[in-house]
Amino acid sequence: MMAAFEGSKIRLGILGGGQLGRMLVQKAIDFNLQTLVLDPDPDAPCRDLCTRFEEGNFRDYKTVLKFGASADVITVEIEHVNVDALDELERMGKHVFPQPSVLRIVQDKGLQKEFYRINTIPTAEFRLVSGKDEIMTHVGMFPVMQKLRRSGYDGKGVKPLRSKEDIDGAFTDASVLERMVDFEREISVIVSRNVSGQVAHFPVVDMDFNPEANLVEFLYSPSSLNEKLSDEAIRIARNLIEKLNHVGLLAVEMFVTREEEILVNEIAPRPHNSGHHTIEGNVTSQYEQHLRAILNLPPGDTSLKRPSVMINLLGEKGNNGEAVYEGFDKVMAIPGAHVHLYGKRFTKPFRKMGHITITADTIEEARKKAKEVSGMVKVVSN
Amino acid sequence: MMAAFEGSKIRLGILGGGQLGRMLVQKAIDFNLQTLVLDPDPDAPCRDLCTRFEEGNFRDYKTVLKFGASADVITVEIEHVNVDALDELERMGKHVFPQPSVLRIVQDKGLQKEFYRINTIPTAEFRLVSGKDEIMTHVGMFPVMQKLRRSGYDGKGVKPLRSKEDIDGAFTDASVLERMVDFEREISVIVSRNVSGQVAHFPVVDMDFNPEANLVEFLYSPSSLNEKLSDEAIRIARNLIEKLNHVGLLAVEMFVTREEEILVNEIAPRPHNSGHHTIEGNVTSQYEQHLRAILNLPPGDTSLKRPSVMINLLGEKGNNGEAVYEGFDKVMAIPGAHVHLYGKRFTKPFRKMGHITITADTIEEARKKAKEVSGMVKVVSN
Repeated sequence: MMAAFEGSKIRLGILGGGQLGRMLVQKAIDFNLQTLVLDPDPDAPCRDLCTRFEEGNFRDYKTVLKFGASADVITVEIEHVNVDALDELERMGKHVFPQPSVLRIVQDKGLQKEFYRINTIPTAEFRLVSGKDEIMTHVGMFPVMQKLRRSGYDGKGVKPLRSKEDIDGAFTDASVLERMVDFEREISVIVSRNVSGQVAHFPVVDMDFNPEANLVEFLYSPSSLNEKLSDEAIRIARNLIEKLNHVGLLAVEMFVTREEEILVNEIAPRPHNSGHHTIEGNVTSQYEQHLRAILNLPPGDTSLKRPSVMINLLGEKGNNGEAVYEGFDKVMAIPGAHVHLYGKRFTKPFRKMGHITITADTIEEARKKAKEVSGMVKVVSN
Repeated sequence: MMAAFEGSKIRLGILGGGQLGRMLVQKAIDFNLQTLVLDPDPDAPCRDLCTRFEEGNFRDYKTVLKFGASADVITVEIEHVNVDALDELERMGKHVFPQPSVLRIVQDKGLQKEFYRINTIPTAEFRLVSGKDEIMTHVGMFPVMQKLRRSGYDGKGVKPLRSKEDIDGAFTDASVLERMVDFEREISVIVSRNVSGQVAHFPVVDMDFNPEANLVEFLYSPSSLNEKLSDEAIRIARNLIEKLNHVGLLAVEMFVTREEEILVNEIAPRPHNSGHHTIEGNVTSQYEQHLRAILNLPPGDTSLKRPSVMINLLGEKGNNGEAVYEGFDKVMAIPGAHVHLYGKRFTKPFRKMGHITITADTIEEARKKAKEVSGMVKVVSN
C-alpha cells in the first residue's frame, strides 16, 4: 500500500463506538492512526480514546456520508449501518472495508443464506418467507428457527417454531425458516483477508452460550475439536471470505452436528466477541489483524501464545443503573486473569460490560481458573 | 482498596504525556480509569487517547497543584516534576505515587548515591562535589564518570573524566564522581510494590546500548545471566524498593562486572524503556503492574509468555521534520514482530519514535529475527 508509512496521516473512520470499536482504537494507537468514531450514544465506550468522537446515527444516510467524507479508510464495528452512504463514499474514492456489497449480504439473513446456497457453503436447510401467512406451507420442516431477515443481533429477532401452535406468536416480517440443528457444539473461526487478497485464519475456538441471554458466556481457545473437523471448519471459513471477496476480519460461527457435519450459522465482517481472547492468547490480536487487512499490511502470525478461556462480563439480573464491579480485586489476584472493562456507565441485565481472559500453560488449567473466576466479578448498579 | 471497583470514578492524573504515559493510558482503558494528562507539548503522544489533556509545565508548582487537584491518584511518567506541589497534594489527601519522598531522592543523583550507601545497596564508588574546583582533589579516583546531580536523562548530564586534562571541560554544577565500572553487561530488573506493600519482580533482562546515543538499542528477555547472579540482582531490586518504601514500579538498571559483582547504576520510579517488551512477552505488562500497584490491587503474574527482544526505533541521523516510517510493511511481515509507534509528529536524530518487540518460541529465534528487523524500519523526515 505504502512506500513509507505515515500512520498519523491516515484517518480511520469507524462506524460504531462500542466495545469492539474501543478495542480496535486501543490497538490503532500503536499504528499512530487518527481514529474518528461515529456513535449515537454520547457516552459510547470509544468516546474518550479516539482522535475525534462524533455523536450521530450510523444508520442515517446523511450522517454517515458527512462523517465518512472526513476519513480515508472507513470500517465498522457493527454491521447495521447505512450502506447507501458507504456506496457513495466508495464512489468518492474512500476505502470502505467491509465493502458495501459484503454488508448488504450480511445485513439480510435471507441473502446470506442464498449466498451460502449458491456458493455451496454448508449451512442448515432453510426457506425464505415474506410474511407470517407463508409459514404454514412449511410446517413439514418443523421444528425450525424463525430468523428475521433484518435486525437480529445477539440472539434478538430469533424464535423457535416447534409446532403449528407456535405460528400465532411468530414474527410477521420477512424471515428465514431454518431447520433446527441438533448440534454437538458451536465453534468459531476468525479469518482475515487484506486488500491484496492475502488470507489468514485464527485457530478454531469452542463457544458456550448462556441459554437465557443467548450470548457467548465462555470461550475456549484452542477448541478440543479433532484435527479433521478443525481443518474442515478452517477450510469453510477461508472459502467463505474468498467467495465474499471481503476485506477485513470475518468471524464465522459454525455448528458441529452430532453427525460431524459442519454448518455455518452466523457471520460478522468485523472484530467479534469470539476473538477477544486473541489480545492475550495469540501472537497477533483480532483487532490488529483487522487493521492490517484494511490497511493492506501483511497478515500477522495468528498462532497461540497460550491457551485461554474468555468470560463475558454481563450485567447482573435485577440491576439497572450506574455500574460498579464487585470482586474486581479478587479476580486481579488470579494469575493470568486479564480484565477488560468497556467503559459503559450504565449496566442492565445481560448487557456486555466487559470480559475476562484467563491464559495458562494448558487449556485444562485455564478452564480450572475460569471456573474459579466465573461469578467472582459481578456487575451491579450502584 | 475497594469494596466494589468503580473504575470510571477514579481520576488518574499523569505528569508527562510522552510514550510511557501513552502506553500507561492505553492499558488504563481496560480498567475504565479517567486519565488526565499534563504535558507542555500540545502534540504530546498522550494527547488524543486520554480523557482530558492539559497543556502545561509539570515542573511548575502552580500548574501541578491545579492539575493534581482535579485527580484522585497522581503518578508520573517522568521524574523531573515539581515535587513541592506533590507534597502539597499529598497533604490535601491525594494519593501520590511515586511519593514525593521517593522523587526527591531520584531527582538528585547525589542523594540517590547516599541512599545506596546508607542502605548498603551495592553501587559504584563515588564522591560528591559541589563544583568544578573540587574535582581536582579526587583525581586519584580517575577514571570517573561525572554525573550532574540534577537534570540527567537518557545519558544527558554525564561526562567521562579520564585524566586531569579532562577537568577543564567538566561540568561546573554539583555532581557525582563515580568510579568507572568495567562491566561485562548491563541488566535491568523491574519491581513493583503496591500500597499494601506487596512486592513483585519481572524476570531479569539484558540491555545493549547504542554507544553514540547512550540509549538502549536492544533488550533481551530473559537475560542469559546465570541463576545465581539473576537471583542476586532480583534480591537487590526488591530490597531497594522496600528500603525506598516506594509505591509503583521501580526500574533498577544494574552493571554486572567482570568480577561478577552487581552494582546499581540508575533507578526510575515509573514504567521504563527496559519493560516495553512485557506488553507482549509477559503475562502482565509493566504498565498494568504500575496501575495495579498505585490502585492497591494485587500484583499480576510477571512470568514470561514468550522470550522477546525489544528494539528502540530512533530517529535517523540527518533527519529533522515530520516523521514517516520506511519499511513499516516489511516488519509487519515478520511473524511475531509488534510495532508500537509513539505518535510523535516530528522526528530528530536519536529521538525515541517507537519500538518493536519480537517474540518467538526461543530467545535464539527472537534474536535472529531481531537482527533481520534491525534497520528494516527507518524513521525519516518527510
